[in-house]
Amino acid sequence: MTETIKGGLEGIIAGKTSISTVGKEGLDLTYRGYSIHDLAKKATFEEVVFLLLYNKLPTKSQLNTFIDQLASLRELPSSLQSVLKLIPKETNPMDVLRTGCSMLGTLEPEEGGRTQEDIAKRLLAVLPSMLLYWYQYHKGKGSIETTSESEKTIASHLLHLLYGHPANADQIRALDVALILHAEHEFNASTFTCRVITSTLSDFYSAITGGICALRGPLHGGADEAAMEQIGKFQSVEEAEQGVKAMLSKKEKIMGFGHRVYKYGDPRSDIIKEWAKNLSVKPQYKVLFSIAEKIEEVMFKEKHLYPNVDFYSALTYHFLGIPTLLFTPLFVISRTAGWCAHIFEQRANNRLIRPIAEYVGPLPMPFIPIEERTL
Amino acid sequence: MTETIKGGLEGIIAGKTSISTVGKEGLDLTYRGYSIHDLAKKATFEEVVFLLLYNKLPTKSQLNTFIDQLASLRELPSSLQSVLKLIPKETNPMDVLRTGCSMLGTLEPEEGGRTQEDIAKRLLAVLPSMLLYWYQYHKGKGSIETTSESEKTIASHLLHLLYGHPANADQIRALDVALILHAEHEFNASTFTCRVITSTLSDFYSAITGGICALRGPLHGGADEAAMEQIGKFQSVEEAEQGVKAMLSKKEKIMGFGHRVYKYGDPRSDIIKEWAKNLSVKPQYKVLFSIAEKIEEVMFKEKHLYPNVDFYSALTYHFLGIPTLLFTPLFVISRTAGWCAHIFEQRANNRLIRPIAEYVGPLPMPFIPIEERTL
Repeated sequence: MTETIKGGLEGIIAGKTSISTVGKEGLDLTYRGYSIHDLAKKATFEEVVFLLLYNKLPTKSQLNTFIDQLASLRELPSSLQSVLKLIPKETNPMDVLRTGCSMLGTLEPEEGGRTQEDIAKRLLAVLPSMLLYWYQYHKGKGSIETTSESEKTIASHLLHLLYGHPANADQIRALDVALILHAEHEFNASTFTCRVITSTLSDFYSAITGGICALRGPLHGGADEAAMEQIGKFQSVEEAEQGVKAMLSKKEKIMGFGHRVYKYGDPRSDIIKEWAKNLSVKPQYKVLFSIAEKIEEVMFKEKHLYPNVDFYSALTYHFLGIPTLLFTPLFVISRTAGWCAHIFEQRANNRLIRPIAEYVGPLPMPFIPIEERTL
Repeated sequence: MTETIKGGLEGIIAGKTSISTVGKEGLDLTYRGYSIHDLAKKATFEEVVFLLLYNKLPTKSQLNTFIDQLASLRELPSSLQSVLKLIPKETNPMDVLRTGCSMLGTLEPEEGGRTQEDIAKRLLAVLPSMLLYWYQYHKGKGSIETTSESEKTIASHLLHLLYGHPANADQIRALDVALILHAEHEFNASTFTCRVITSTLSDFYSAITGGICALRGPLHGGADEAAMEQIGKFQSVEEAEQGVKAMLSKKEKIMGFGHRVYKYGDPRSDIIKEWAKNLSVKPQYKVLFSIAEKIEEVMFKEKHLYPNVDFYSALTYHFLGIPTLLFTPLFVISRTAGWCAHIFEQRANNRLIRPIAEYVGPLPMPFIPIEERTL
């Protein structure tokens, strides 16, 4: 039983995948064999989604068709709009996506003759509409747009819905890169959840809903929000240096550092850090960026820990004017691409995922009649 | 990597538990050290829920307080009623519970100061109301009761809501026993899903929603519905014998037989078979019971496979007049007890559950510019 000594299935192979590699020596992170550095520099999010779903980079004409399809699938059914309005304003937006995804599964069920590819595209297209519809409704926006015809891509559509006007090219590209970097990451906890659910032969919406449930936790997707809250607490570089050292001496956890699988740095971090830097145009953003760099420096000096993708993604989102509580929902929108690819892969060669437990409870005992029990 | 040869994490220890033992030699199935045979004979479902949640059999006064608490927590918030009405009539009722549980998490969030014990009790009490409210609404029942004050227990309340009048003592006890038998089963796929989600430090509702997502699949909770459909296809014992043999010769799967962990029979099967027999009072029920026994006999002769809990549970539910599509939702109501106990246990000693994958995809490739790609 030596393989379970570390707990949490660390280092245990739970299945095969051809979708991505995480932290293999000399490989860093690849999607379908392509380096994350190339994809973040040369591809768009829609190209990456196509690659993940169809295992091939699209031709120009395939990509255009795909983008048009996604743009045509953004509309919210009216029953779903009603449900979104019933979800209170104070709700964690992850619960909005969890409920919205589950509700959509009742309105457009897989059993109704939809293919898994249909549902994958529908979810990728409609999740941003769900999120922003709920968000803007509770902000009291009179007219709630869920589509903006002129915005072809997911990143530009999303920022337009959030801002109420078109975003600029740098903003769109920064979000596009963040979406690319978060799209897929092997057997992380949420993707693994999707695969466990899929392994029972449950439906597509159940698998994605489960992914959202898992991504919500601060040890997973929720880490970017926690990282932002931490960075935002410091007013200056000096304060950050002292503050982080004080936290470390009290054994407090600094969010956004270290990774279960990457031991020598997260290849996504430098890519998104560059975008955070590009976007830090306002004076207060420059201060925040310097604070973040100082935290990075202290963490390396003191703990030899590298920032993971969450740390500078948080700053990038902040500099894009995205409210902190929407960070993890953006992660959902991106990771849905990877989840879908893993559901396809699990279904193509399925076996029920059912581990066992080490029993550490009492030995068998005789039943005690209720009259004889004591407090 | 020999440990993964079988796939599906078969035989891999994914963590420790003191809640139950499944199929350990000489132990069969125990909850907190008590044999399932004793519990099914001498305890009530509420006693078993108390045992699972609080790791102790309740005294008479504790049990009465617990039953009163659960009975007081059955009411559906009006927003949840509205959502249930918006879910179409044709929906798989598992999707109703999935959506209802997720929605409740937006109305009564854990972050709002509720303890995990509060939420566990609320869910156990309100899931039957959700299910029957949606079901009766779409049956066109004018007045939709969600509580029946006179019915103290979950089993009696549930059958009263379903029948529209009180059930008799045999019916109530049969359902109570079925709920006891399904309440807990170590690291099955849905419980494991709850634990993976919990391991990210996500909220309670997300974990339970994920459990529902996984239980929905026919390789897991959905098996009882599939078993009933199969039994119901045969008109006579002779037809069943020939039919099952024909299916076996075509290598078709017979639902309700075999188990990943139990190799020499499911200890729950004989218990629930006895109840199916007790309830088979109508002539057509006697025929169905004989058909089921013949299938059991053929499966043992031909394949040396034993019926699992699903097989005779399906008949028991059928003889209780429960529509087949509500079988798996009943499983949810019961298993919520075990899920809650596992969420408590995971939280008390948490580590992120994050396995790794064996990569079987392409080696790193250079990126191909879009103009150079071919179909």
